[in-house]
Amino acid sequence: MEYYSKTITKLIAELGHLPGIGQKSAQRLAFHIIHMPEEQVRELSTVLLEARTSARFCRECFTLTDSDVCPICASDKRDHRTIMVVENTRDLVAYERTGQYNGVYHVLQGAISPMLGVGPGDIRLKELMVRLQGDVDEVIIATNSTLEGEATAMYISKLLRDTGIRVTRIASGVPVGGDLEYIDEVTLLKALENRKEL
Amino acid sequence: MEYYSKTITKLIAELGHLPGIGQKSAQRLAFHIIHMPEEQVRELSTVLLEARTSARFCRECFTLTDSDVCPICASDKRDHRTIMVVENTRDLVAYERTGQYNGVYHVLQGAISPMLGVGPGDIRLKELMVRLQGDVDEVIIATNSTLEGEATAMYISKLLRDTGIRVTRIASGVPVGGDLEYIDEVTLLKALENRKEL
Repeated sequence: MEYYSKTITKLIAELGHLPGIGQKSAQRLAFHIIHMPEEQVRELSTVLLEARTSARFCRECFTLTDSDVCPICASDKRDHRTIMVVENTRDLVAYERTGQYNGVYHVLQGAISPMLGVGPGDIRLKELMVRLQGDVDEVIIATNSTLEGEATAMYISKLLRDTGIRVTRIASGVPVGGDLEYIDEVTLLKALENRKEL
Repeated sequence: MEYYSKTITKLIAELGHLPGIGQKSAQRLAFHIIHMPEEQVRELSTVLLEARTSARFCRECFTLTDSDVCPICASDKRDHRTIMVVENTRDLVAYERTGQYNGVYHVLQGAISPMLGVGPGDIRLKELMVRLQGDVDEVIIATNSTLEGEATAMYISKLLRDTGIRVTRIASGVPVGGDLEYIDEVTLLKALENRKEL
């Protein structure tokens, strides 16, 4: 049944298809949008389509971008001999936010997962190997600390064993500011295992 | 800092301005949208602007619609002599969902609130009075069971006292399926007060 007008009903339906937006939220959002200044709605409508149509993967590192080569790969201020391997663009952004990493990235667009049927051929591993034929000093594996992320890290480290390239893995442990009381046992054991001399 | 491309950054910013959508959700939504089929994004982009540009208030009842007169007011299957007064279109939709109400509505577009500086002249009360000059048997006041909703209900009932029109108020009480243990005291007292003979 259409309780609202056709266009409002349609807008609510479209918004409700987005992840994490239920019927009630879609309704609330739609009403907000209808009460927004028309210019703002026009802007939102345009940027939606623009972001989608211009989205592509960087030719070098395969992060999501809107140019042939992403700004990080194109920059001569970055250290192109250090490559951090991440699962997706959001993970890349997480490290960019620290403002402390000056190397470049390689975005796998996934992780190896036998359970989900994702094999080494399904992520951007071949492309990584091609890049490593250039001058590379270090590959930092920053896949997630999950089953899939760890499997992917293991796979890459084996793959690179005899290349002479330094391969490292970001540390697992207790998050900074984390209270031991609230941290799971696996992390606590990892933190103990990876303890350092003071 | 732009961690993503310009268009993606812009999309995340625009989405983040919507109510209830924080930075993280905006990011998640943006990535979802970028991975959606282009046709679907085009559809969403179009319907957004369409819903906004076509939105207007029904000339009769002031609900949000996209035509001069809303489908309910235009229908000759509805009882136009019974008017339910609600605060906004979402409340109208809530009653429409019951499928049991066959009268028409009057949408006040707000409620009287001295605290927020909303007086009787700021909501669609004058327009209600004009409608009541026609043939009307009953006005059902279905404003919310809040301070503002109750104040508005009282105001309207006083206004209509000498018109000969039957004025009723929807009942307050324990929601159907509600467990007394979890219901606030005020509702419990209202329910007691409004008790009926069995």
